[in-house]
Amino acid sequence: MTEHDRTTSGGRRRQVSVPDLVAGARRGEARSVGRLISLVEDGVRRTAELREAMAALAPHTGHAHVVGITGAPGVGKSTSTSALVAELRRAGQRVGVLAVDPSSPFSGGALLGDRVRMGDHATDPGVYIRSMASRGHLGGLSWSTPQALRVLDAAGFDTVLVETVGVGQSEVEVAGLADTTVVLLAPGMGDGIQAAKAGILEVGDLYVVNKADRDGAHQVRRELRGMLALADRPADAWRPPILATTAQTGEGVGEVVAALVEHREWLDSSGQRAVRRRRRAREEVEALAMTELRRTWAGFSGAAGLDDLADDVVAGRRDPYAAADALLAATDDAGGPS
Amino acid sequence: MTEHDRTTSGGRRRQVSVPDLVAGARRGEARSVGRLISLVEDGVRRTAELREAMAALAPHTGHAHVVGITGAPGVGKSTSTSALVAELRRAGQRVGVLAVDPSSPFSGGALLGDRVRMGDHATDPGVYIRSMASRGHLGGLSWSTPQALRVLDAAGFDTVLVETVGVGQSEVEVAGLADTTVVLLAPGMGDGIQAAKAGILEVGDLYVVNKADRDGAHQVRRELRGMLALADRPADAWRPPILATTAQTGEGVGEVVAALVEHREWLDSSGQRAVRRRRRAREEVEALAMTELRRTWAGFSGAAGLDDLADDVVAGRRDPYAAADALLAATDDAGGPS
Repeated sequence: MTEHDRTTSGGRRRQVSVPDLVAGARRGEARSVGRLISLVEDGVRRTAELREAMAALAPHTGHAHVVGITGAPGVGKSTSTSALVAELRRAGQRVGVLAVDPSSPFSGGALLGDRVRMGDHATDPGVYIRSMASRGHLGGLSWSTPQALRVLDAAGFDTVLVETVGVGQSEVEVAGLADTTVVLLAPGMGDGIQAAKAGILEVGDLYVVNKADRDGAHQVRRELRGMLALADRPADAWRPPILATTAQTGEGVGEVVAALVEHREWLDSSGQRAVRRRRRAREEVEALAMTELRRTWAGFSGAAGLDDLADDVVAGRRDPYAAADALLAATDDAGGPS
Repeated sequence: MTEHDRTTSGGRRRQVSVPDLVAGARRGEARSVGRLISLVEDGVRRTAELREAMAALAPHTGHAHVVGITGAPGVGKSTSTSALVAELRRAGQRVGVLAVDPSSPFSGGALLGDRVRMGDHATDPGVYIRSMASRGHLGGLSWSTPQALRVLDAAGFDTVLVETVGVGQSEVEVAGLADTTVVLLAPGMGDGIQAAKAGILEVGDLYVVNKADRDGAHQVRRELRGMLALADRPADAWRPPILATTAQTGEGVGEVVAALVEHREWLDSSGQRAVRRRRRAREEVEALAMTELRRTWAGFSGAAGLDDLADDVVAGRRDPYAAADALLAATDDAGGPS
């Protein structure tokens, strides 16, 4: 059941209390899950409710296997995601999907195409699919993505797939969020060198060459193998496998699911799962504290306001360090940041 | 005179005082300029000296025209930068160049090639060229770039060219730093659609199709014109011109310099120069304050330490908002962030 439910900007539809939404999500109701994610996206306007929801969800998190799926436009990410959902469902899992789409700089529309169309799963109550806005046209993950993941995790989804377009920073970001990162490639879309450019050689736990029935697929695998072999990994490190699929027909997708399971087991046995989750939580806490501080600073005016400080710097009356000191001193005088 | 001077990690070479370095830089001595930029790059270890230098430089900043030059690997950025330097020198300007190179994720070397080789200008005292490390393999600008710009500005360079590889976020970042952003394209390297992907349509004040003597150059210009025409600009906005060069021979480079001058005049007459510089200074001050806070937080241990807070979040004992509150409360208790 796809769910694109959104509360209106006036927030008028709030008949359902946060505890009811959390209880509904915990029972696996798509409508409640959808409203909670909308609450996350509306967070700036509805902070009190969002905080209440996050506090109620916290004890139920930590179970989902978060899988990032990234790759350049045209490699078949949506088809692959859909095929993975089908395969995971066959294994009896409940599956959530967050699709982070970039939008055009001008139209606000989906210039890069590649919108998720997963009609096959629309009537399956064990699947929840949600498109989320990206931060800017480069497809960066929005700050709300970790919190949306938290909702799906608490709602009991066994695996959550986060699909992002890899055109810059986003594949690095999704690797920061995910337990397991799947990098998709395809023949004719970008060879090994291009892969290196985009930084994907650092982030993949699994590499999947899609459109394996096409000319050049072997070549992509060979180049990728060569480049991965150059990486300097400790002896006990995970060795990313290189798999081949034809997502359109489902060919090879079973092997991808098997590799996901294997990587999850390695994460547990090596202790890396805890390491990754701790790092992720640290970054999330820091980012929320920073957001709070920026809000405090935005409220300052006069000599300690950012506009006046910036004017001092532009005019050469202060250097940027002295201006930063003045900002922090004012934060302190204001009785601390919160 | 190229200058890759670096203080050793022990800082043993510090015979010259900061006031002497600043005075030397103000007299246009490359050696002093180089040491000040090294000080910026070493900033984390040598904060007191860096702050002293920035305070001394501040009154002398605000004169240089900062020009960002960005484009995909292979469009001829270094050749174009070199040709621009030559043309600006002919116009009697002193020119600084900061080349921000990405390094390979594995080797730390320059996988993307494209290193600056500007031997032509090596013996010209009116030119200063410096390579700077980038932040990560995507070529993101390091936090030290704005401060290095400040050094060159105070040293009296009329124009400072900042060359970055446009493979993701960096072209957006350089646009944030520059008064004028030049986006380079070339036939066969990326058509209009690819341009849109990389976000360059938002950031260019000037577009230059290099390798104009090659097949397909007209096509690139036509596509670019079509895409720029779609942009919704106010009537009094700057209309980015599309120019053509063959940087190798210098063909068309004079027109680029003329367009730079024209854009600079527009920035002044429209008030946009002040707007851009104020925004840039705001971001710089905020970033320095954030850096200071992260340092404070990194020093916290025990229940208010980020590791313990992250563990609480991972275990579901706290939600991320509550953890951020605890972090900010500890910041406050510690007598403020500074």
